[in-house]
Amino acid sequence: MNNRSWLDELKWDAQGLIPAIAQDEASGKVVMFAWMNREALAMTVKLGRAVYWSRSRSKIWPKGEESGHVQKLKSLRVDCDKDVVLMSIEQVGGIACHTGRESCFYFEITTSADGCHCWQAVEPVLKDPKEIYQ
Amino acid sequence: MNNRSWLDELKWDAQGLIPAIAQDEASGKVVMFAWMNREALAMTVKLGRAVYWSRSRSKIWPKGEESGHVQKLKSLRVDCDKDVVLMSIEQVGGIACHTGRESCFYFEITTSADGCHCWQAVEPVLKDPKEIYQ
Repeated sequence: MNNRSWLDELKWDAQGLIPAIAQDEASGKVVMFAWMNREALAMTVKLGRAVYWSRSRSKIWPKGEESGHVQKLKSLRVDCDKDVVLMSIEQVGGIACHTGRESCFYFEITTSADGCHCWQAVEPVLKDPKEIYQ
Repeated sequence: MNNRSWLDELKWDAQGLIPAIAQDEASGKVVMFAWMNREALAMTVKLGRAVYWSRSRSKIWPKGEESGHVQKLKSLRVDCDKDVVLMSIEQVGGIACHTGRESCFYFEITTSADGCHCWQAVEPVLKDPKEIYQ
């Protein structure tokens, strides 16, 4: 028997989605941000691993399905407004990003001497994406 | 002279917004999630402190304006899709949440013996909100 009131307590947006942040339990790094619908979040808790809703493909997206880069759920939190979830995860393979990097957040703003800003990739590619997705 | 191409590189949603995650530089905790429009993000970088867009009030929201709980920007990143920003911040006062807690992410999912889930507040209130907002 499932008690779904914990899902009802959350504020889902007009598309029935909630933002989800994945933070690596070991390194503390924020490695990914994606979206979940009710089904994805229920699956995440039931299976103990991150399951997202792919907005581009309009379907359930079990993270790591193809790459093997599964995110094992360690703990799950929601914020004061109950409209954003934060997962503490164990990142299998140490790679969250489809570019082969540990984290998706690898562009950092830099400022040049004349005050111009630009985004620079500051994290190394750990594995060639061609080897990840075959 | 401002070079705004770094803003143009980002993917703004249909409302002209981008999600923003604030992570405490010292503790590594994710303390807050909110939204920014172009102006808010430009101000964040220019002023060196988090400025959000309040969706509920439809206006620029300089974090800490009333509470004093300013978030000093330490570094700014964007993800692989360039549609989410991640700030590393110094949380002035050690309180990010309007409830008086260090982090907004203070509800954790717990599972009872019969498999039911519920959200439980697991972080202490450090300061009475009545003292923060007078």
